[in-house]
Amino acid sequence: MNRKTLIERREALENLLKRRFFIAPSFEIYGGVAGLFDYGPPGCALKSEVESFWRRHFVLAEDMLEISATCLTPYNPLKASGHVDRFTDSMITDIKTNEYYRADKVLEEYVENRLKEKSSNPPKSEEEKNELETLGIKAGSMSIDEIKESLNKYQIKPPSGGEWSEPYPFNLMFRTKIGPKEVEGKNDSVGFMRPETAQGIFVNFKRLYEYNGKKLPFSVAQIGLGFRNEIAPRNGLLRVREFQMAEIEHFIHPDRKDHPKFDDVALKCLPLYSSKTQLNNGEIERNITLKEAVHGEEKIINNETLAYFLSRTYDFLISIGINPDGIRFRQHLSTEMAHYASDCWDAEVLTSYGWIECAGHADRSCYDLLQHSKATKTDLFASEKYDEPQFKTVLVLTLNKPLIGKTFKQEASLVTEALQEIANKGDISFQEKLNQSNKALLKYKSCENGKEYQWEISSEMAKFEFQTKKVTEEQFTPGVIEPSFGIGRIIYCLLEHSFKIREDLSEIQDQSTGNKNTNNSPDNEMQRSYLSLPALIAPVKCSILPISSNAIFNDLINLLHKSFINHGISCKVDTSSASIGRRYARTDEIGIPFGITIDFQSVKDDTVTLRERDSMKQVRISSSEVPSVISKIINQQITWENVLENYPLFTQQSNE
Amino acid sequence: MNRKTLIERREALENLLKRRFFIAPSFEIYGGVAGLFDYGPPGCALKSEVESFWRRHFVLAEDMLEISATCLTPYNPLKASGHVDRFTDSMITDIKTNEYYRADKVLEEYVENRLKEKSSNPPKSEEEKNELETLGIKAGSMSIDEIKESLNKYQIKPPSGGEWSEPYPFNLMFRTKIGPKEVEGKNDSVGFMRPETAQGIFVNFKRLYEYNGKKLPFSVAQIGLGFRNEIAPRNGLLRVREFQMAEIEHFIHPDRKDHPKFDDVALKCLPLYSSKTQLNNGEIERNITLKEAVHGEEKIINNETLAYFLSRTYDFLISIGINPDGIRFRQHLSTEMAHYASDCWDAEVLTSYGWIECAGHADRSCYDLLQHSKATKTDLFASEKYDEPQFKTVLVLTLNKPLIGKTFKQEASLVTEALQEIANKGDISFQEKLNQSNKALLKYKSCENGKEYQWEISSEMAKFEFQTKKVTEEQFTPGVIEPSFGIGRIIYCLLEHSFKIREDLSEIQDQSTGNKNTNNSPDNEMQRSYLSLPALIAPVKCSILPISSNAIFNDLINLLHKSFINHGISCKVDTSSASIGRRYARTDEIGIPFGITIDFQSVKDDTVTLRERDSMKQVRISSSEVPSVISKIINQQITWENVLENYPLFTQQSNE
Repeated sequence: MNRKTLIERREALENLLKRRFFIAPSFEIYGGVAGLFDYGPPGCALKSEVESFWRRHFVLAEDMLEISATCLTPYNPLKASGHVDRFTDSMITDIKTNEYYRADKVLEEYVENRLKEKSSNPPKSEEEKNELETLGIKAGSMSIDEIKESLNKYQIKPPSGGEWSEPYPFNLMFRTKIGPKEVEGKNDSVGFMRPETAQGIFVNFKRLYEYNGKKLPFSVAQIGLGFRNEIAPRNGLLRVREFQMAEIEHFIHPDRKDHPKFDDVALKCLPLYSSKTQLNNGEIERNITLKEAVHGEEKIINNETLAYFLSRTYDFLISIGINPDGIRFRQHLSTEMAHYASDCWDAEVLTSYGWIECAGHADRSCYDLLQHSKATKTDLFASEKYDEPQFKTVLVLTLNKPLIGKTFKQEASLVTEALQEIANKGDISFQEKLNQSNKALLKYKSCENGKEYQWEISSEMAKFEFQTKKVTEEQFTPGVIEPSFGIGRIIYCLLEHSFKIREDLSEIQDQSTGNKNTNNSPDNEMQRSYLSLPALIAPVKCSILPISSNAIFNDLINLLHKSFINHGISCKVDTSSASIGRRYARTDEIGIPFGITIDFQSVKDDTVTLRERDSMKQVRISSSEVPSVISKIINQQITWENVLENYPLFTQQSNE
Repeated sequence: MNRKTLIERREALENLLKRRFFIAPSFEIYGGVAGLFDYGPPGCALKSEVESFWRRHFVLAEDMLEISATCLTPYNPLKASGHVDRFTDSMITDIKTNEYYRADKVLEEYVENRLKEKSSNPPKSEEEKNELETLGIKAGSMSIDEIKESLNKYQIKPPSGGEWSEPYPFNLMFRTKIGPKEVEGKNDSVGFMRPETAQGIFVNFKRLYEYNGKKLPFSVAQIGLGFRNEIAPRNGLLRVREFQMAEIEHFIHPDRKDHPKFDDVALKCLPLYSSKTQLNNGEIERNITLKEAVHGEEKIINNETLAYFLSRTYDFLISIGINPDGIRFRQHLSTEMAHYASDCWDAEVLTSYGWIECAGHADRSCYDLLQHSKATKTDLFASEKYDEPQFKTVLVLTLNKPLIGKTFKQEASLVTEALQEIANKGDISFQEKLNQSNKALLKYKSCENGKEYQWEISSEMAKFEFQTKKVTEEQFTPGVIEPSFGIGRIIYCLLEHSFKIREDLSEIQDQSTGNKNTNNSPDNEMQRSYLSLPALIAPVKCSILPISSNAIFNDLINLLHKSFINHGISCKVDTSSASIGRRYARTDEIGIPFGITIDFQSVKDDTVTLRERDSMKQVRISSSEVPSVISKIINQQITWENVLENYPLFTQQSNE
């Protein structure tokens, strides 16, 4: 697994993907639209197989609830979730040409140019080199002011040589109008295309919690479209404006994030790339068990549930055919994470474009449920009844609301929130400070806007006292752990990993005539490349190829085709006049794992040859057995090796 | 099957759908958005099963190409397809209250009120009655002027008693902006959410034709979202703003619309409701074979391919559980059809809301491909090579372009188009008219805007002559036959048809204690209702119910659960303390076809009881056999009757 090979092969792969219509630019005959791609027949079937296996691997096997919410989303929920205000990229415009750019990409490109080999302007010192590296890493999470400062500091100019505009935020959501009525100045009719499927799950929390018999933890999954109005879409399927996502929201008690099935995975080692390792420029760690990672001294992974999902994701990626050597789990640096998140790991896959995030695993804490609960004044909490009522000592807060209101005015409700949080934590130290000097400094980071506040509180304003109360149940806002998958990215990575070029070309020898294929036409190149997609998710499972277009084969072709359909197995009949070798090559190209050849022998004794794509080996097998054998391989009940053991190897078609 | 029963039961059904979270209004905690619904866990699973069977029944069995194009669609393709100009509903506003209404609905409601029993203003004559009936039928396809005229004629006023505004068109597409750049006065950045998936197929025609080896006919399918900004969404899932569609575009030679598999269905009789029957107020015809319908004297159905698809749709609807007595195929009246369509049949299902269109089957002719071809100057045609070059007599047109240009100015290109069409048809009669009087009247209906033209052509302008030419291939724009399914509507119809109320309540007797359940609580009602969904598409296939919460059952529960997952069968474990009868009732409500009860006998001999939902009968069966038995029923290899024959009937759980 190395990036250089992937880069070398990229053009040939992209060629194949376009030529065999895996994907193509949407509305190509109209000139296309940046960031929009259509899946053609093999691409669409591959996507559908990957989704269907995702559903089996996660929803079915983990007993998740799956829902399907709408893409159209009104203003208010996205205001509450923070997307209206903060789902932005910083843009800058070249004042001279009116061309717009993503500010972080401009900075990253600048860094790349300075640091590359043979740079015309290499860093002048080790210190400057480090500074540039940090700039490159931080560019994506910088504020407008920081961007401005960096553009100034390094005197970065647009390609035209002109001047940059001030950086400004650009909201990435597609905006529309719902209904025919427009009320001026109101957001009632404003709608957006959802930027993630997650919010559709959060707003349904109450119904879902009830559906699950009011028991925690539970997971809710959703497969569906997300939309982002990217400023500069690029890299084919990797940054697009409309994309299929598969998301899981796992609701859990915020203080008990253990997982009942953690023991099943505790001794597994995943390729972990922790934030600490990243900051130390270390290597991916492959020998730490998940048990050590969660419960060891360093506590690399925040909790068992997060670790359990990382392991499930790893299994998923490998099952569909991603090379394990090209997978790593990269922990977010604390500067990268959303302010409310407590831990975050991306499953990244090595591609010709570098390491690409394919699935995120974020601990979103209680943030979203709290926000929707506040915005709608709805209770979005779970409760657990104690077996018997308990007497609990709780810290009770008594407030002097008029005084707080008078003193802090607009910030009064934030102050109250901050004090209540201290009480909820049972932290008496603040009262002790008040006792000492009749006043104390209250620091608070708002969950809503991420801002930090600091107030001076006097002992007249608030009083904390321990009291013993009889409690019958505990009520709490569940925490949320979110594994979130980008299906398009996964498919692109999968295609890069399964793109192979055949060294052994003997098969292209025309078997029906015995002549070597000496054709040097341009499509000789394509005959050698193939996609080694696992049968589990291959877009088409098998091909049926009569040795010639003789009508004598038609009955058997139809019989086999029907039998495959009845087994729910997709198959493609190719009766064209090309040689068998050439037709194999064509089916290899779109990743069909099995080929069935019907020859003159078949008509006599009802046997056919069954060929496996990767090994190119063939066995002779009775035509009535072949659908169930292929079905068993697809469902991972047997392997191709089992087939080789049980059926006679076949070498040459008779052309009699 | 009668509408009255469906109406009586609707409230109970809607109650169930909401309570068990099949569907719920989207963003309910924010007050909801009209026309948007979320599918909860059982609804989402049902939708997914229906889609997956659709894919098997159409894509797989009919060897279709499936693609997945984007929802975001730029301006130009939708301008070409006519959606920008004509995808509108006529709206009227109550000037007094500023409330808006769909004009056709206002007219329909007026007609309904006048014609209902005990109307306060019944029609004054048989003539007026007929007039009103015609108005009701025509309302949906009336022009702005016709609407205005009718509102005036009948003096229809808004509910407030005020005045109506002028009727005006409202475009039903959701509009947005693609990319961050906006060029004033240009449509470059204007995007819409697609109103149908079909256009994504048409614009890819060239690639698809090539993918299919340049052979006709072939079908392309697409499952995906469509969006319509309905003025007045209503009736739950029946008129919504975002909906899942499954569409097929079948490309075919425009003059040869026979179907190779027509013989398989030729002797079937479908419930046909032809336009002629509708105009004569006749009954649905159930005894005409498709052969008669297509090839008989009346030629009720335009061609074999259309008839073949009607038959496939009929089979699809019945397989998923729609009652055949509640299905009809209604032919569009000529006034209903798009101007380019040559025939159109809707599969309608009887619901409490009346007959509802669930799938359309339209012959769209060459319209869409021609439009996109014109707009992009791309060749979107198919060609068929003759086995040998042929000498064909063709009508060749020679034009005097300057004269035509001078005479007809802006309409010159339309005149040319019309004349060329005469030549293409090989129709010499126009030349004969020219020969007679040196001029002739040319009538033409534009494919682009549906307008009718009439011009006087002189013999100096055009000359038609037969010539013999050597032709090696025929080039033509394929015709398109489009079966198009609304998944949400089908699901709603299916739910109405499968909603049953149990008369026999003996099972609610608490089997674990032997006591009759004498509970008269409100949920007694719900215990009696259930959904008789076929196993094929049931959202969850089976439930696992231990007779009590005794830990002794846990191993067997886990073993069975794993075995079901390995068979790819969804199952739900219910270990709650409710009685078995009550738990059966709960699973019946969400349509789970099979229930497995684990009792104390199971721990001894590894047998369990298997209960079927509709018959409520149970057999005793070994736990290792049960997953494969259920799997076979789902895949329609065996029936429940076969199971009853092969395993001993079981009557009462032992509680020892």
